[in-house]
Amino acid sequence: MKVSVLGVGCTKFAELWDKSLHDLIAQAQFMALDDAGIAPVQIESIFVGNMLAQQFNGQAHLGAIAAQQLGINVPSVRVENACASGSSALVCGVHSILSGASNVVMVIGVEKMSDVAIAQATSALMGAGDYQAEHFVGATFPGLFAMVTRLYMQKYGLTGQNLSQQLASVSIKNHNNAVLNPLAQFNKKMTMDDYFNSPIVADPLRLLDCAPISDGAAAIIISSYDFAKKYGKNRINIIASTQATDTLDLASRCEITSFKATKIAGDKAFKIAGISRSDINVAEVHDAFSMAEIIALEDLGFFEKGRAGFETALGKTQITGELPVNTSGGLKAKGHPVGASGISQVTEIVNQLLGRCGQRQVNNPRYGLTHNIGGIGTTSVVHIFERE
Amino acid sequence: MKVSVLGVGCTKFAELWDKSLHDLIAQAQFMALDDAGIAPVQIESIFVGNMLAQQFNGQAHLGAIAAQQLGINVPSVRVENACASGSSALVCGVHSILSGASNVVMVIGVEKMSDVAIAQATSALMGAGDYQAEHFVGATFPGLFAMVTRLYMQKYGLTGQNLSQQLASVSIKNHNNAVLNPLAQFNKKMTMDDYFNSPIVADPLRLLDCAPISDGAAAIIISSYDFAKKYGKNRINIIASTQATDTLDLASRCEITSFKATKIAGDKAFKIAGISRSDINVAEVHDAFSMAEIIALEDLGFFEKGRAGFETALGKTQITGELPVNTSGGLKAKGHPVGASGISQVTEIVNQLLGRCGQRQVNNPRYGLTHNIGGIGTTSVVHIFERE
Repeated sequence: MKVSVLGVGCTKFAELWDKSLHDLIAQAQFMALDDAGIAPVQIESIFVGNMLAQQFNGQAHLGAIAAQQLGINVPSVRVENACASGSSALVCGVHSILSGASNVVMVIGVEKMSDVAIAQATSALMGAGDYQAEHFVGATFPGLFAMVTRLYMQKYGLTGQNLSQQLASVSIKNHNNAVLNPLAQFNKKMTMDDYFNSPIVADPLRLLDCAPISDGAAAIIISSYDFAKKYGKNRINIIASTQATDTLDLASRCEITSFKATKIAGDKAFKIAGISRSDINVAEVHDAFSMAEIIALEDLGFFEKGRAGFETALGKTQITGELPVNTSGGLKAKGHPVGASGISQVTEIVNQLLGRCGQRQVNNPRYGLTHNIGGIGTTSVVHIFERE
Repeated sequence: MKVSVLGVGCTKFAELWDKSLHDLIAQAQFMALDDAGIAPVQIESIFVGNMLAQQFNGQAHLGAIAAQQLGINVPSVRVENACASGSSALVCGVHSILSGASNVVMVIGVEKMSDVAIAQATSALMGAGDYQAEHFVGATFPGLFAMVTRLYMQKYGLTGQNLSQQLASVSIKNHNNAVLNPLAQFNKKMTMDDYFNSPIVADPLRLLDCAPISDGAAAIIISSYDFAKKYGKNRINIIASTQATDTLDLASRCEITSFKATKIAGDKAFKIAGISRSDINVAEVHDAFSMAEIIALEDLGFFEKGRAGFETALGKTQITGELPVNTSGGLKAKGHPVGASGISQVTEIVNQLLGRCGQRQVNNPRYGLTHNIGGIGTTSVVHIFERE
């Protein structure tokens, strides 16, 4: 398979009090159109990734907003898979092209979370887990991820101090990358002291292990490879678009320090792309919690199980390292407007492959990967991009 | 295009206090698997249509519930397009097959609405319209549809009494069909007196013009035509799957007594299917309000503009009429669990084409159509089915 990327756009991620859902969608849409150099009427289908607008903003039916703002009547739908909503929307968009239903598709991710109180947001986000088995009995995402982290520590014989230093190295790297990204929510360098001075949220996870509540939107325009080639726009291509699903509740799994859905989606993606792990030059992986980045890098096969934290601490995933990871700042520091996060990852990889990332630019990357999960690794979506 | 229907399943529609979201999904899933005669491991992809579970049941990520209940790890997503969520999920499922990504796909529609108060449900349903332009200023769906109805009356020179009799004939027909459907929420015959004795909800719409709040789920299993043919299961095929989008808010349209999205999706569907209106032997159209059925029958080209109400009053859309419409009882009387409604329509058409509808069976139909809208005709989805 091969689908081309014609253009990308991404808004600033932050608490955007002066921007409505409509505004955020429009801004990302027109940035992507501008980047692609095509007109709204050329879009044949729209997919919008969003999780919480119905509950937070009283607004469902976001597909219609996106179509109306372009003044077009094409098929448009919202796709939801919790924090993987954006990437799942992209999978649907790719299928729409490969099915022959559309030549040019716009995929948008958007979330406006700052309109509600933090406690309400934390509770609503548990919609990504199992209401009956987890939310009803008081579980929260930081709490569930803390359980995963504790078990990881035990399984790999790490002391609390060792593990914390590994987690800190993830968070510090991502925050320091975000300083180089004008679209990022946070723009302050972090130190080991900052990390250890941040309050514990769910032992052993600290505030600086957790992604923030954010507003933002991102958009990507894709087309069939033939269409792109005809117009000389086949520079960046999606060469794998895969997705897998694990159980919604953690209690139903045999293993929680590794996420089966990521392994399945990752293996399938590399098989379809026909490249190996070492070919990837830059990756954006899901770091809603710093522990999640460590697990993702292992499950995707970039590092041995139990090793990704060590390697991160050694600097392997820095912008100048062997495999730069989350050069954008990641969900942790660029921000995590959940429906937008997956598409935001894609915009970073596309910009990296095109050499447009300024101070955080990786040296001449050819292959990039995005990895986005929903729930505690319940849904996992992997995309691989290639520069021709 | 041609995609085959391997099996369908639908739960009872009602206020199902003793059934959870998980239960409803599972029941529809296993009915469809049983009908298809295939095993869960044969399903390669899942799409779930749902609008309100995050807000009403604290539960997003329904794709994962559906996959977990089948014990499989395949890609699974939720699709939302307000009251057209189920049908939009089917469009995505069809594209997944046509893209070559999957051979066998399960599409589920589900909604559990009775856990919240009616006022809360009415308010939440306005998520299908424009929050900024409509909900914020106090509009409700019955109110908006009443405006459409008043303008229709004026445009076609109908007196209030004449129009009410037309609306009543839609509602009475659908209620009387529902009496023959054991899955329907209502099972009481209606008379003209019942209609005129029912309270006015939004003048001129009465309680008996409006679909109820419902719980329920429906599922369909589809496959590539080749797969179905190989296993001798190519009896019912989807020969058109189209969707279009109009503006989210009514104020932005030039015309509200006809829905542009339905016209576009309908015209495209008949063109793709290569059949004419008169070939359709049975149809399920969106009747969340009885006015909506009249407009749908006109926009789909079955009757001239301004005529569908007259023709309905003359009995043309009865089970024994020229074009039987909403033999299931429709959204009005079978019930309207919004995410499930579109897939429920499909189960009725498939069962009609297979001659499995008992007392409400249409005489030997070959072609059937479903039409499902989200918002005030904002999203419109049309499917055409053929019995080989």
